[in-house]
Amino acid sequence: MHSLQFTAESSSNGIRERDFTLGGVPGVLWSPASGAERAPLVLMGHGGGAHKKHPAMAGRAHLLVTGCGFHAAVIDAPGHGDRPRTAHDEREIAELRKAQAAGEPEGPAVVPYNARLAELAVPEYRAALDALQELPEIGAEGPVGYAGIGLGTAIGVPLVAAEPRITAAVFGMMWPDALFEAAKRITVPIEFAVQWDDERIPREAALTLFDAFASKEKTLHANAGEHMELPRFEADSATRFFARHLGRTVTSPA
Amino acid sequence: MHSLQFTAESSSNGIRERDFTLGGVPGVLWSPASGAERAPLVLMGHGGGAHKKHPAMAGRAHLLVTGCGFHAAVIDAPGHGDRPRTAHDEREIAELRKAQAAGEPEGPAVVPYNARLAELAVPEYRAALDALQELPEIGAEGPVGYAGIGLGTAIGVPLVAAEPRITAAVFGMMWPDALFEAAKRITVPIEFAVQWDDERIPREAALTLFDAFASKEKTLHANAGEHMELPRFEADSATRFFARHLGRTVTSPA
Repeated sequence: MHSLQFTAESSSNGIRERDFTLGGVPGVLWSPASGAERAPLVLMGHGGGAHKKHPAMAGRAHLLVTGCGFHAAVIDAPGHGDRPRTAHDEREIAELRKAQAAGEPEGPAVVPYNARLAELAVPEYRAALDALQELPEIGAEGPVGYAGIGLGTAIGVPLVAAEPRITAAVFGMMWPDALFEAAKRITVPIEFAVQWDDERIPREAALTLFDAFASKEKTLHANAGEHMELPRFEADSATRFFARHLGRTVTSPA
Repeated sequence: MHSLQFTAESSSNGIRERDFTLGGVPGVLWSPASGAERAPLVLMGHGGGAHKKHPAMAGRAHLLVTGCGFHAAVIDAPGHGDRPRTAHDEREIAELRKAQAAGEPEGPAVVPYNARLAELAVPEYRAALDALQELPEIGAEGPVGYAGIGLGTAIGVPLVAAEPRITAAVFGMMWPDALFEAAKRITVPIEFAVQWDDERIPREAALTLFDAFASKEKTLHANAGEHMELPRFEADSATRFFARHLGRTVTSPA
């Protein structure tokens, strides 16, 4: 097992940010600046084309750390952020750009590419969880959540299906095709976001994926608007979801 | 115009409760015990077979008053709570009980009965709003919301379509048949709750009603579970929705 190496550290506005690498995979851990006290961890997965410190990740981490006193960690997906693109990545991205330029459906390009990224990323996330739980401020006993939209869902659904330490998850905004079988094995509480007028992912397809989760407690949030218009208040809602399920009260409402 | 007459008053846990009647219609107004300051009002509509002080109403009022400093008011629907049942009410209720006992769909009984109740209740709600806005602590300029599930939606959809003073609404859990035309005229932000495994209201019917609203900002919350299993956290979510749209911050997260 690789051990986690911190490569940079800063603190601002009550949030401690530590960059790390683990077996060559770069990640970031955000924590309460004050706390040595043990607290729950939320693993997060960034969207396609984004990276571990994208504002969508840093913004959600801010809510989780300052609102709940939780830790939040993200690793770069293969071929994303500070990680090199392989020839395979370049070919897949070219396929996607071609479909977009031609006004064709993106699913046939995104689905297999993201499924391949998930195959690589799931063991990386599990290794990151092993290493993060070695830290005394996280520990091996505390509850763990997962949040990821888009590519973060393509990785997160097989991850949560495989990983019993993750007890609550926020997903959304991904074609269902490669995810049905894993979704059927997930029984932990989930919150699932879709865009009602998504011009890329057909509404019916999004709803069939929500339907597939075996979770007794699952909530669909469908907002009016296109693919890129997911409202900011869904990040607040996800924070409250984790506060409910990972066992802390939200102390600073957004 | 009838004027509002207060018939009882009490205060407890920071909440002032005032019973009132208006033209023979009994209602209740919950307000911050502390405040003479002007604050937004949320009108609420109770469910079928319930009444103005049902725990579902008192509980939501508690969140709105103590969490946001808002006023919340409910009136008994025709034939409900402290209001007499007419022979027509008795016939409609007998129809519904018959369908339930026979295991038949309830929609054919509920839809026309609730549509009739809404015809009577909409002018009652508008008169209550007129009278409540005469109170200095509410006023005619402040923002107004509406929240109602079930029968509260059957009344609320035509009410909000007709009433320009209502600028945000929470609905859910009602057959769409009698509500499409009014829903298409509603453009204010809405939050709409359905139960994903509702054994009474078909899922597809619930989704078509959500789809019909003309609101640019609308959010569907679909929770796993049967008709009576709407999760309590939806009341928290509705409170935050009104805090966003009626312009106050939630000060005491639930």
